[in-house]
Amino acid sequence: LLSAVAEASLCSINGIPLVRNISELPQDNYGRGGLSHITVAGSVLHGMKEIEVWLQTFAPGSHTPIHRHSCEEVFVVLKGSGTLYLAPNSHVKYPGTPEEFPIFSNSTFHIPVNDAHQVWNTNEREDLQVLVIISRPPVKVFIYEDWSMPHTAAKLKFPYHWDEECLLTTPPSAKDEL
Amino acid sequence: LLSAVAEASLCSINGIPLVRNISELPQDNYGRGGLSHITVAGSVLHGMKEIEVWLQTFAPGSHTPIHRHSCEEVFVVLKGSGTLYLAPNSHVKYPGTPEEFPIFSNSTFHIPVNDAHQVWNTNEREDLQVLVIISRPPVKVFIYEDWSMPHTAAKLKFPYHWDEECLLTTPPSAKDEL
Ligand SMILES: [Zn+2]
Ligand SMILES: [Zn+2]
Repeated sequence: LLSAVAEASLCSINGIPLVRNISELPQDNYGRGGLSHITVAGSVLHGMKEIEVWLQTFAPGSHTPIHRHSCEEVFVVLKGSGTLYLAPNSHVKYPGTPEEFPIFSNSTFHIPVNDAHQVWNTNEREDLQVLVIISRPPVKVFIYEDWSMPHTAAKLKFPYHWDEECLLTTPPSAKDEL
Repeated sequence: LLSAVAEASLCSINGIPLVRNISELPQDNYGRGGLSHITVAGSVLHGMKEIEVWLQTFAPGSHTPIHRHSCEEVFVVLKGSGTLYLAPNSHVKYPGTPEEFPIFSNSTFHIPVNDAHQVWNTNEREDLQVLVIISRPPVKVFIYEDWSMPHTAAKLKFPYHWDEECLLTTPPSAKDEL
């Protein structure tokens, strides 16, 4: 799989310029309505091992899933406003009613490790644009359907590669060997 | 020392709001002319263990030292333009003449681990503002006086805490115990 990554032409970390224009990087919604995701610096695309940086834009009303992860995560809000829902990890069996924090342009916040959380563009008139930084890629994420779902029932999605189509790309040379 | 950090009122990670307005965070030049540094999310101030995020503004003509480190580092250029000088680590005894890369608003780049580098605001008319993300704080940084200084002579500065005055703060209660 690793050699597949290295050899896949569209996804290769080789040949990608060191300084990249973010507005020319590929963006996708990865099947999530209202989302635009750009991997600014990533493990699959750019060989990062310890940090990833994403630029995400949420249309009014769109949001992340309710989820938790054991990596560190920092948000920097570049544009717009919205709401952070955060359920502090208090040794109960499910997240429970989250606290609500207003987030706004030029604000920053980090997610306490393993706390269930959700970021929501609750501003009906404006996109919410955030820079997201996570440690230890790829993220091992547990997704909740609602705030009363037991922690043990949260669905693991791992690895959570935004750019997983690159991981799935099998180069012709590898096929030839079969 | 750790309890000193926890107890120091100005530097405490306790009581700091989860969502912070970046424009209200403390900034300092840390003795470097032309620099404004803001720790957006840091180990000393906010208890981060795996990543730190800084907002740095370089006045025209100002720059980082020539330095290297083994952590990962990602830059996102928010405003202005400048030059990245980078000496790829090619098994020689000193960095040597660096390659020059133009950097510009809305660009991103990461520094290959252990490569000597320097970021310079070479635009005489505009501030250069960058978001800097590093892994494994605090940074263990080796500083070069020039590009021909041997790697072994580069001066270690560790830990490189922007917020080290917080580490040096001894709370009254600790003094009382002596
Ligand atoms: Zn998250
Ligand atoms: Zn550096």
